[in-house]
Amino acid sequence: MGQNKNTYCVIMAGGIGSRFWPLSKNRMPKQFLDVLGTGKSFIRSTFERFLPIVPVENFLVVTSESYKTLVLDHLPELHPDQVLAEPVRRNTAPCIAYAARRIAAANPAATMVVAPSDHLITGEAEFQAIVREGLAFVDGNEKLMTIGIKPSRPETGYGYIQVDTAPRAETDGTSICKVKTFTEKPNLEMARVFVDSGEFFWNSGIFVWSVGGILKALGTYLPEIDAAFARGEGKYGTAEEQAFVDAVYPACDNISIDYGVMEKSPEVYVRCGDFGWSDIGTWGSLYQHAVRDEQQNAFGGGGQVLAYDTRGTVVNIPAGKVAVVEGLEDYLVVEKDNALLICRRASEQNIRNYVEDVKYRFGEEFI
Amino acid sequence: MGQNKNTYCVIMAGGIGSRFWPLSKNRMPKQFLDVLGTGKSFIRSTFERFLPIVPVENFLVVTSESYKTLVLDHLPELHPDQVLAEPVRRNTAPCIAYAARRIAAANPAATMVVAPSDHLITGEAEFQAIVREGLAFVDGNEKLMTIGIKPSRPETGYGYIQVDTAPRAETDGTSICKVKTFTEKPNLEMARVFVDSGEFFWNSGIFVWSVGGILKALGTYLPEIDAAFARGEGKYGTAEEQAFVDAVYPACDNISIDYGVMEKSPEVYVRCGDFGWSDIGTWGSLYQHAVRDEQQNAFGGGGQVLAYDTRGTVVNIPAGKVAVVEGLEDYLVVEKDNALLICRRASEQNIRNYVEDVKYRFGEEFI
Repeated sequence: MGQNKNTYCVIMAGGIGSRFWPLSKNRMPKQFLDVLGTGKSFIRSTFERFLPIVPVENFLVVTSESYKTLVLDHLPELHPDQVLAEPVRRNTAPCIAYAARRIAAANPAATMVVAPSDHLITGEAEFQAIVREGLAFVDGNEKLMTIGIKPSRPETGYGYIQVDTAPRAETDGTSICKVKTFTEKPNLEMARVFVDSGEFFWNSGIFVWSVGGILKALGTYLPEIDAAFARGEGKYGTAEEQAFVDAVYPACDNISIDYGVMEKSPEVYVRCGDFGWSDIGTWGSLYQHAVRDEQQNAFGGGGQVLAYDTRGTVVNIPAGKVAVVEGLEDYLVVEKDNALLICRRASEQNIRNYVEDVKYRFGEEFI
Repeated sequence: MGQNKNTYCVIMAGGIGSRFWPLSKNRMPKQFLDVLGTGKSFIRSTFERFLPIVPVENFLVVTSESYKTLVLDHLPELHPDQVLAEPVRRNTAPCIAYAARRIAAANPAATMVVAPSDHLITGEAEFQAIVREGLAFVDGNEKLMTIGIKPSRPETGYGYIQVDTAPRAETDGTSICKVKTFTEKPNLEMARVFVDSGEFFWNSGIFVWSVGGILKALGTYLPEIDAAFARGEGKYGTAEEQAFVDAVYPACDNISIDYGVMEKSPEVYVRCGDFGWSDIGTWGSLYQHAVRDEQQNAFGGGGQVLAYDTRGTVVNIPAGKVAVVEGLEDYLVVEKDNALLICRRASEQNIRNYVEDVKYRFGEEFI
């Protein structure tokens, strides 16, 4: 049950995490932060989570050119060649097409797991078992597997995966199911129906497939993207790779692998799990996972906080600072470097807009 | 109407302004700040306000030893000898007793005006006329005059002065009245009665008297304090002064000149004025005087602010920073150096307690 030299891991680390502004900034996005105070950044935790399964030389991290140094700071075990630099952001489909070509050039028989760099997984052993099971499931065939999470609440911030028949791990010994539909983020009413039905699972954005399987699917469902990266044959893993990628990337469609491939292919399966998982995509999800005091306040960031008549409030300030807060209920207070955010927790979905406004009004130096 | 060589001005600048924390800190209290964005600190404005009346060499500033350098930075026209250093804080009576002895040693025929260093006065010309009138009124006698302000609202944050008969400047050509009582800060109901009566005026804490008059009153009503400073005769204005003051000060009662002398002497008069005045003693009074936007928000400190769904809120952040605030109504948001305060404007009277708590919990470096 150790590492398999045919197994590769692609960590997607290009996000800019603007919903976590100002904690997460362009220069230091969420994947490089330890917002939960675990002592490790998200990307470091992600790397270590796969290290029992994937040989260190088989990791690839896809990120922005500007984060390459940061990635290597957090993952010093990697050779710089293992960090793939996207010249522009084009969502997950081009990112996966690129990484799959790079892996195929080195090992056409590879299986691969693709994961975001900034998720929280607490049931690590169960997760690892599911990844191993998935790698075995897709090895040598063209099945595309995604990992679903048993929903614990009618979350409206996630996409859902509907299974053809609900998994019956207790009876038939397998919980890998065919996928019926992928859904967008539902409204609350719909999310309740999803959860009650037992047929819907959170879409974790973690994928398992063989390199041959994903390249076949890309060729079928996203032929332009596939063709663009296919033209690089002979350049992957060489000194010519970056220049080729820089030339090809900007013309790629901005499209997710979910929308471009997973929703269209009949070869799509989901392995549902019940390990602790969160995309920590919002302050709300961070709040769910944070240590809270008796008034349900969550303080983090290393600074000192004195709270009076304050409930349900997140305060995140850096070490060496003190915050006195009074009379707040269900607010976010986040201060970092040259920016301070105070807003209702219920308004967290607007933070992206605030960041855009700050950028437009006051400039890039604040975001 | 120019300067008079017998006229002295004592600026009291020992306050630590903890109600303005964290804008005002121990190392840089309110009198040295320009919280209204006028381009000048309060102490500088105070100095310039008296400069047409008092020769520059006749100014004295009484402050803490630790602020002596700051005072000279703000008032470079002064000789270091003109800054009197209190070794400990003992309220206004010892401060005035000390300054009066110092002045008497140089000029027993002096008249003097005593003023706090951190008030706002907008009707400067009218104020100056009143000070001149007062100086003439007390010259060569033992009358003690204070300046009262016609109240524009039932303010509960100020002490009030009741006059024996309401001033009738229109009819008898004078508005200097005998004082009937000094009152503590009233509750709102009482403040309304005060304002409606026409007999009550805000106590500005600005005094005018002859040096002989105040020394006589101190001898009568605060004999211990008077005797302590009388023992320094021959040392004022010499190299021995500071050591003498350092020895005498700690044993002095902590008592205000209002309570110790003004409330007791029958020689007390008030000149009521209607110039624009505020002690800017609280964020609320600063808010009253600040430029506000359509939502009645007041932004200051030099930083950039984006406000959404926010009303009646003060945001004060330093230049180079950006704050995004959402969903606040009637709050204070103040950030400076290593401290952030967020509280309801209605809770501003508690800020002193918060500062004490911060000091106790986290140490002096934050206050």
